[in-house]
Amino acid sequence: MIHQKRIADYGIPIGDLPRGPRNKLSDVAGVQVGHCTLSDGAIQTGVTVILPSIANPFTHKLAAGCCVLNGFGKTSGLVQVEELGTIETPIALTNTLSVGAVQDALVETMIEKCRGEGVEVGSINAVVGECNDGYLNDIQARVISKAHVRAALADAREDFAEGSVGAGAGMSCFGLKGGIGSASRVVQLDETSFTVGVLALANFGALPDLTIAGRRVGRELEKHIDVRARLDQGSVIVVLATDAPLSDRQIGRVGKRAVMGLARLGSQLGHGSGDIVIGFSTANVFAMQARRDVLEMRVVREDRLDGLFRAMAEATEEAVLNAMVTAQRMVGKDDRVRESLGDWLEMLGGWA
Amino acid sequence: MIHQKRIADYGIPIGDLPRGPRNKLSDVAGVQVGHCTLSDGAIQTGVTVILPSIANPFTHKLAAGCCVLNGFGKTSGLVQVEELGTIETPIALTNTLSVGAVQDALVETMIEKCRGEGVEVGSINAVVGECNDGYLNDIQARVISKAHVRAALADAREDFAEGSVGAGAGMSCFGLKGGIGSASRVVQLDETSFTVGVLALANFGALPDLTIAGRRVGRELEKHIDVRARLDQGSVIVVLATDAPLSDRQIGRVGKRAVMGLARLGSQLGHGSGDIVIGFSTANVFAMQARRDVLEMRVVREDRLDGLFRAMAEATEEAVLNAMVTAQRMVGKDDRVRESLGDWLEMLGGWA
Amino acid sequence: MIHQKRIADYGIPIGDLPRGPRNKLSDVAGVQVGHCTLSDGAIQTGVTVILPSIANPFTHKLAAGCCVLNGFGKTSGLVQVEELGTIETPIALTNTLSVGAVQDALVETMIEKCRGEGVEVGSINAVVGECNDGYLNDIQARVISKAHVRAALADAREDFAEGSVGAGAGMSCFGLKGGIGSASRVVQLDETSFTVGVLALANFGALPDLTIAGRRVGRELEKHIDVRARLDQGSVIVVLATDAPLSDRQIGRVGKRAVMGLARLGSQLGHGSGDIVIGFSTANVFAMQARRDVLEMRVVREDRLDGLFRAMAEATEEAVLNAMVTAQRMVGKDDRVRESLGDWLEMLGGWA
Amino acid sequence: MIHQKRIADYGIPIGDLPRGPRNKLSDVAGVQVGHCTLSDGAIQTGVTVILPSIANPFTHKLAAGCCVLNGFGKTSGLVQVEELGTIETPIALTNTLSVGAVQDALVETMIEKCRGEGVEVGSINAVVGECNDGYLNDIQARVISKAHVRAALADAREDFAEGSVGAGAGMSCFGLKGGIGSASRVVQLDETSFTVGVLALANFGALPDLTIAGRRVGRELEKHIDVRARLDQGSVIVVLATDAPLSDRQIGRVGKRAVMGLARLGSQLGHGSGDIVIGFSTANVFAMQARRDVLEMRVVREDRLDGLFRAMAEATEEAVLNAMVTAQRMVGKDDRVRESLGDWLEMLGGWA
Repeated sequence: MIHQKRIADYGIPIGDLPRGPRNKLSDVAGVQVGHCTLSDGAIQTGVTVILPSIANPFTHKLAAGCCVLNGFGKTSGLVQVEELGTIETPIALTNTLSVGAVQDALVETMIEKCRGEGVEVGSINAVVGECNDGYLNDIQARVISKAHVRAALADAREDFAEGSVGAGAGMSCFGLKGGIGSASRVVQLDETSFTVGVLALANFGALPDLTIAGRRVGRELEKHIDVRARLDQGSVIVVLATDAPLSDRQIGRVGKRAVMGLARLGSQLGHGSGDIVIGFSTANVFAMQARRDVLEMRVVREDRLDGLFRAMAEATEEAVLNAMVTAQRMVGKDDRVRESLGDWLEMLGGWA
Repeated sequence: MIHQKRIADYGIPIGDLPRGPRNKLSDVAGVQVGHCTLSDGAIQTGVTVILPSIANPFTHKLAAGCCVLNGFGKTSGLVQVEELGTIETPIALTNTLSVGAVQDALVETMIEKCRGEGVEVGSINAVVGECNDGYLNDIQARVISKAHVRAALADAREDFAEGSVGAGAGMSCFGLKGGIGSASRVVQLDETSFTVGVLALANFGALPDLTIAGRRVGRELEKHIDVRARLDQGSVIVVLATDAPLSDRQIGRVGKRAVMGLARLGSQLGHGSGDIVIGFSTANVFAMQARRDVLEMRVVREDRLDGLFRAMAEATEEAVLNAMVTAQRMVGKDDRVRESLGDWLEMLGGWA
Repeated sequence: MIHQKRIADYGIPIGDLPRGPRNKLSDVAGVQVGHCTLSDGAIQTGVTVILPSIANPFTHKLAAGCCVLNGFGKTSGLVQVEELGTIETPIALTNTLSVGAVQDALVETMIEKCRGEGVEVGSINAVVGECNDGYLNDIQARVISKAHVRAALADAREDFAEGSVGAGAGMSCFGLKGGIGSASRVVQLDETSFTVGVLALANFGALPDLTIAGRRVGRELEKHIDVRARLDQGSVIVVLATDAPLSDRQIGRVGKRAVMGLARLGSQLGHGSGDIVIGFSTANVFAMQARRDVLEMRVVREDRLDGLFRAMAEATEEAVLNAMVTAQRMVGKDDRVRESLGDWLEMLGGWA
Repeated sequence: MIHQKRIADYGIPIGDLPRGPRNKLSDVAGVQVGHCTLSDGAIQTGVTVILPSIANPFTHKLAAGCCVLNGFGKTSGLVQVEELGTIETPIALTNTLSVGAVQDALVETMIEKCRGEGVEVGSINAVVGECNDGYLNDIQARVISKAHVRAALADAREDFAEGSVGAGAGMSCFGLKGGIGSASRVVQLDETSFTVGVLALANFGALPDLTIAGRRVGRELEKHIDVRARLDQGSVIVVLATDAPLSDRQIGRVGKRAVMGLARLGSQLGHGSGDIVIGFSTANVFAMQARRDVLEMRVVREDRLDGLFRAMAEATEEAVLNAMVTAQRMVGKDDRVRESLGDWLEMLGGWA
């Protein structure tokens, strides 16, 4: 069991809704996350993969949607997600200049996996998100290879680590150390509990804007911490998983509410920030081998979505903070330093 | 029973798929169309309404989608259709400068209707499409009133007229008389027959471009007919109805294929033409009074949509031609004349 | 000169950027706002118009863009704004069930205005936004007529009132009284000052969520104020005006940042809330009578937009608060009450 | 000088507008095309690159737009094109399963090129389009490597070949041999000639639907040619280049008219076909090193776009036919055969 001190452990509550048991993306049954981390001097980067379900997502597709909050980004695969409303591969995250290599590797591993199941893959849509870790990482070295994607896939688990791991290794957030964070919320529909899980690759924001639970912490910290890069550049990729039965359009609507969480943290949706949400629901499985032309599916009544909207905003806000407090202080490329929010939170004091 | 000579009666086959029994929008069970026509000298305009089902569409919403092929148009109501994926009123068609009046009347009649059923309407999204009949009609007179919308609603029936009726009264198409036309196609899924019905308000195109079943008829006709307005202005509104169980996204995909039919007729999707498709499926009814938060619905397998795509293209192409051949020669505002395609088709000869 | 106590007068600073001289939409030269207010017992509604420039906007079009944050709304005119990237009428705001009537009136007055200038209007795209004032107003009475739109147009001025005026008459916001509010911010580009002006028709949010400058004021107020409607329904229309030379796409990008301001106030972008941004730039005028096919225009360098983004977020946040504090306590339909935030702010105390 | 028999050489005229001197994409000054072709037994694939201008597109960006006609495709880079309205790399085309590898290579070569000019690339958006050549090519072998992208870039020229070359090597179109084709049209604005150039990677359509200049050639050919794959699968990527000064939105509008050309050829915009248009204008150059925050640019008056719309439709229709007639009969993977349209056109006879 992983033990990392998370934002709630500092006595800082985010939002009003109840959390899932792990307070992670993997509170949605069947969802797993794997990392491959490269951390050595000027190389601070990696790959994170999100497996949407225990089945092969190519042969058993899930409803999916996306929302481009700010499109200064290189995420691949969204054209088909928008047209067909499904995903058919794991979602991979990496650095900006490695999207092609990771997309290529994801296609290769899916071809192999399907071949092992007797399925020929002539066309497959790999979804790869990215943020720019070029402040701490020698991003132009472009060290990510297929082996790293395979390692991340092999590492997939429910009890995954947060912080400077996987694609989050070299990320920065609000001028501090960023990375991978996660959170979840539970919502009742028809007396059944449904989970909204979020995983964020957090790499955006300028220090003075950082706001935690309404407190403009960034203004306090900038007196102590010298941050060279002050622009809201970088990016954030937000992955939404839910077991609530949502249509592709509804997933897009819920996913869009990530922006409310980002705004409360102090994001400006900066011009140079690729802020993108990708989501899927595990509730309806579209099996390739279905014999019928007309399928049954379940969807939430449109006017019952508000709880899920709120859950998405809260989980996004908390996921980013979890990324920041679990990420350790790092010295990276050219001896550049990113402090850890976790180190400074207690020093600031004044919480609850 | 209405008897109007339609394009098929000239021995001109459009497309390959089988037609429904009426070859009209109303081949989709429950769908009705009503007209109110104003035709007197310089006033050549009207209102056409499409009732999506026999039930109240506000209390029993239907999945809906739309596709803006060219957005030089004033259609109202699409913002909510895109967000929520449903329609909740009849669809009304009229002239460009009467959209507000018709929208207002539609809201009023829906409030009354719902009040009669004990339902309070605090918010309702009326869908109104338009084309510009200003060549034959004194459009600035803006004569359309609530009474005309009520008359169109009262006129709703399955066996509706085509040609210079309702909103089609003063429309022009390819420099000839345009108007309202309809067609349908039948597609098999799971050994069940599903219908794609199309109604077009046809008011676009330049005469030299007119192409019928691959023959550039416009080039032949321009030797005989003097057409002043040569630009591809005007607009076309295409209404799609189907009993195939489609999601909102799928309705948008099918509806988009209207453009294939328009292109084959010689449309250029001109800058000044508001070319808009609005569609709905009668297969899933979202009842306001449903007690559950999670609903069941049926959808067509995504990779079984091709037949519906082809049906949409063919029905759109034929609906426009039906509008043109059923519309009589008209002398309108300022003694402007629009010839009828029907009158010229036989003269040209050479069919079949 | 209008004297209304605004949020800054309570010593509550919103954001970091400098304000324009009036701190209103009309800090953008040429922009005027007019109101027509109906306030009598159960009738609490009205019309607000925004005149984008001193010239006729039909003959002198301005670049425009929009952003649908949540499309549960009936705003008319967006299809053409998105296709052509311009506006050609004043923007009118009113209640949900009067959009058609106001659209109709706007078309009528524009035809008259243009006729007076010797211009025939065959097609014109009126932009009308709405929120639902049905809590305080007998919205089904639908009392708005053409005369009210004319009165609002005649009232247009730079020094316009805020609060329960015009379209804002009967609006609610966070369970308190809402209405019309405005604010502006100034940004430097090339050593020149450019203004971002915002006008908000504020009618969204649930009381417990209300957050002012990071403080969850709603949680404090709900102990004192009984609010029946707790859902985040209603809507907000945000109008952006700027003299910065932006392309239509750039206006859409800047306008989208309204959501950051809304989020910080506690909005959840609720399912039932039509949250829509409409913007225009006065910097480039597209004259109908231009003789050339190719025009010159100025645009801001894409990577210099961040200041405008921040300005938009701040001005939106402050505009909503200005609406709330200037709006007086109201007793409306069925003796329903909405308290004024202004009355409660001082009582709460604790502001710097 | 390349001599290939093209559709016009068969006496088959497509459209009404005048052609450019080469009747190719490169009639737009500065635009070059390069191919790398792999053709050996079961390997029939390659890479085609389009260089948008003679300058470095990263330091000198061009306005760009795109249009997803049907999004069953893996094209990368569109998210950023839509947000920022520019392209910053050559456009590369390849097979479906090699998008990642080609994207990766494009990024690598751009980093090198920029480094040679003293520019550090931390973030770059590579645009890569694809079609599925899996009928003739062993697509799962995924043989495309960086060397092939480099070879295509080195091959760039104005006088480029069409047919089974580059990315077109293994493509099929209407059940016959497809590939790369190009065409251009010339339009007058302000007494100046502007060019619309199109390059198509043609890999779509079912034989019975093939229609040439209104004649349903496919119905005639299916009596002679046995085609196994009858579904409209595959894809088509259409690249638009123009020297007309268009804004990003206008490029999208012009580009969308590709669908009119595709429809006239018999395309059904099939579910399984990724039909995507990517366009750019060479008229305005956005230099990275510009010193001003506000830039001047030229744009075509919105109501003067119709000529460009028509040019786009015609050039697309002719480009696809040029691809088909220049592509030779091929025996590929598993001894599968695709006949050449060129071989059959004369046999059919009956052309003016």
